[in-house]
Amino acid sequence: MKGKCVVAQSGGPTAVINASACGVIQEALKSPDITGVYAAHNGILGIMREELFDLGKEDPAAIEGLKTTPAAALGSCRYKVKTEEDYRAILNVFKKHDIRYFFYIGGNDSMDTADKVNRLALKEGYEFRAMGVPKTIDNDLAFTDHCPGYGSVIKYLAAMTMEAGRDTEALYTADTVNVIEAMGRNAGWIAAGTALAKRSEEDAPHIILLPEEPFDPERFKARVRHYLDTIKRCVIVVSEGTKNPDGSYIAEQKGEFAKDAFGHTQLGGAANFIKAFVERELKVKARFAIPSTIQRTGMHFASLTDSREAYLVGQTAVRLALAGESGKMVTLVRKPGAAYGCETGLAELSQVANGEKLFPKEWIGDDGYSVRQEFIDYARPLIMGEVQPLMEGGLPSFMRFKKHFVK
Amino acid sequence: MKGKCVVAQSGGPTAVINASACGVIQEALKSPDITGVYAAHNGILGIMREELFDLGKEDPAAIEGLKTTPAAALGSCRYKVKTEEDYRAILNVFKKHDIRYFFYIGGNDSMDTADKVNRLALKEGYEFRAMGVPKTIDNDLAFTDHCPGYGSVIKYLAAMTMEAGRDTEALYTADTVNVIEAMGRNAGWIAAGTALAKRSEEDAPHIILLPEEPFDPERFKARVRHYLDTIKRCVIVVSEGTKNPDGSYIAEQKGEFAKDAFGHTQLGGAANFIKAFVERELKVKARFAIPSTIQRTGMHFASLTDSREAYLVGQTAVRLALAGESGKMVTLVRKPGAAYGCETGLAELSQVANGEKLFPKEWIGDDGYSVRQEFIDYARPLIMGEVQPLMEGGLPSFMRFKKHFVK
Repeated sequence: MKGKCVVAQSGGPTAVINASACGVIQEALKSPDITGVYAAHNGILGIMREELFDLGKEDPAAIEGLKTTPAAALGSCRYKVKTEEDYRAILNVFKKHDIRYFFYIGGNDSMDTADKVNRLALKEGYEFRAMGVPKTIDNDLAFTDHCPGYGSVIKYLAAMTMEAGRDTEALYTADTVNVIEAMGRNAGWIAAGTALAKRSEEDAPHIILLPEEPFDPERFKARVRHYLDTIKRCVIVVSEGTKNPDGSYIAEQKGEFAKDAFGHTQLGGAANFIKAFVERELKVKARFAIPSTIQRTGMHFASLTDSREAYLVGQTAVRLALAGESGKMVTLVRKPGAAYGCETGLAELSQVANGEKLFPKEWIGDDGYSVRQEFIDYARPLIMGEVQPLMEGGLPSFMRFKKHFVK
Repeated sequence: MKGKCVVAQSGGPTAVINASACGVIQEALKSPDITGVYAAHNGILGIMREELFDLGKEDPAAIEGLKTTPAAALGSCRYKVKTEEDYRAILNVFKKHDIRYFFYIGGNDSMDTADKVNRLALKEGYEFRAMGVPKTIDNDLAFTDHCPGYGSVIKYLAAMTMEAGRDTEALYTADTVNVIEAMGRNAGWIAAGTALAKRSEEDAPHIILLPEEPFDPERFKARVRHYLDTIKRCVIVVSEGTKNPDGSYIAEQKGEFAKDAFGHTQLGGAANFIKAFVERELKVKARFAIPSTIQRTGMHFASLTDSREAYLVGQTAVRLALAGESGKMVTLVRKPGAAYGCETGLAELSQVANGEKLFPKEWIGDDGYSVRQEFIDYARPLIMGEVQPLMEGGLPSFMRFKKHFVK
């Protein structure tokens, strides 16, 4: 089937979402069936607003540079398509520009959007193929062994934890406890990944607080005290999604634990809460760090394995669409055996859209503050190798598109 | 003069303070005049408590590993020596172990301590040589062109700013403003260093808030609005030491600006304050990141230039002490000419102890939120090259001493 294609990026950026875009774009530009390769500016918003730019007019070096540029070079958005009208508007733009292929790089919501556009096209008899390309640091998409973006965020956050852990080890007589806040509102995948930093009892992180384990003040206090008694310090990684037994976030603490050591009301931030808790309950000085979006865009220390897989899923989406597939998301399937390897598979967009892969309870250690070797074995291969960004003046050099908008 | 030496590390860790220790230790171990090379565990506290460990018994590979290990492998402290009694206790430990050479790696306070121990030894007729080795991410020591530790913190923080800046660029329709908090209670050296990330108007950081420029709410608001109007986003680096016109920290805001968008009282954190200010005053969503100690221990992206100079000042301190110098700190002296190069010089400990090098007012741009090319020319050479830490399982591998304590 001949026609143009559109590629779009959605949701929170990652270090390797551009590698997926690169896979899509380079493969699409090679195909004689694809008569034009467009980007939607800022995800689905760019389609609804008819803000499309022509990737065929970009410098091939800029396209290649996507592999070493973090965040989302096409522009992203958090817009949730809801109404039938929206979907009709999207399809009309596709029809107007003879767009027959749609590659959407994103998480659950994006898969849902791609699925619904695809169904509408089918219903209207418009020949069209929509393929999903998985992307999320949260690693919570179903049907795929892991998600591109996850390996890089945990590699970088684990390195931060190691390094800040050495800081606490050096200065424990003054800064005794250090708290690092990891992303992940609903699942502990990212916080758990920092366990990769740990090679001995001495090493940080000493305690990992996961959303899957309700926060138990007394048990937590005892665990911190154990480390203060044995190694005189404690580095804690807290997931921003850590919850109280009643299901509320610890960051929204009320009542007894709502005040800090000075009696001030606690505001936002799981790390802030844990710092104040430790200072009040254990009478030692604590610090905290909130790496926030820094953790998900760490191209200067991104996982090469992750980057290559991100490219692969993008490239494969185009190949399979050209071969006639539609309404599917490309997945990563881990090969059996001791040596790590992944090949691609397919899952129905509608099923991915409604699924969610939680951190397995059985991978949490008995103490509730650690992870089991099974998780380490799962996660270790995902962080192997380092992407080498181009350097200029002692800092990475990232690309930008010129964005020749289509009229 | 024959005798043992002690090396100690003090104050906040850096990515390269261990490289300085490596320079001291490797040079000292080579000297026939130095009959033993001891480390003080946790800085001056280790001397007062007689907690010394024998570096001659450590694996030479561990000593070499100091070059690629962040924080302070000997242990550090924030103890301020104040009383005559303390100094006498320190000198007594030196006498007891026949310690004739003291190498203290640290900032102003450490130089003061080394100076006073040296004077006491002189007064008591104890043959002794004390040398200071500069270390501080704050870059505020006088008499040296720059301080080992500074190049690495700004290289890493500038990379973080670039990368998080791309995140905001991708997702400005949702996360419009991003605030990154830089260390530096008294001087803007670190926050200013993030300007190295900027290659065009598009690039972050768009606004830098320095302690040297009093915070002016109206002018700041107008500057943020300028970026929202032109590039639809704004990345702000705020120094934790940014102050109100009355000299108080913005993080301790009172009155009108003490409430966030929800009317809650603002607590701690310059970034937190700026985020709340932007959301309330400009009605756009803002995020913030607090890299905290992570920024100063980034060995996985440390400056090779910085690391080599850190080694050089340590090595030189030993060479000059053996040649008869005492009561001095080794400095870095920039060679004239276009090509960057540094040689070492000397400054009196007492003068360094009482000096402080503030960020030059004339290097701040007219808008108050940027730096001039003179600063970029000063700082750029300090971030060139990358240290390559050993890697294991996708993460850096750091050394630890066995610590054979001296009885």
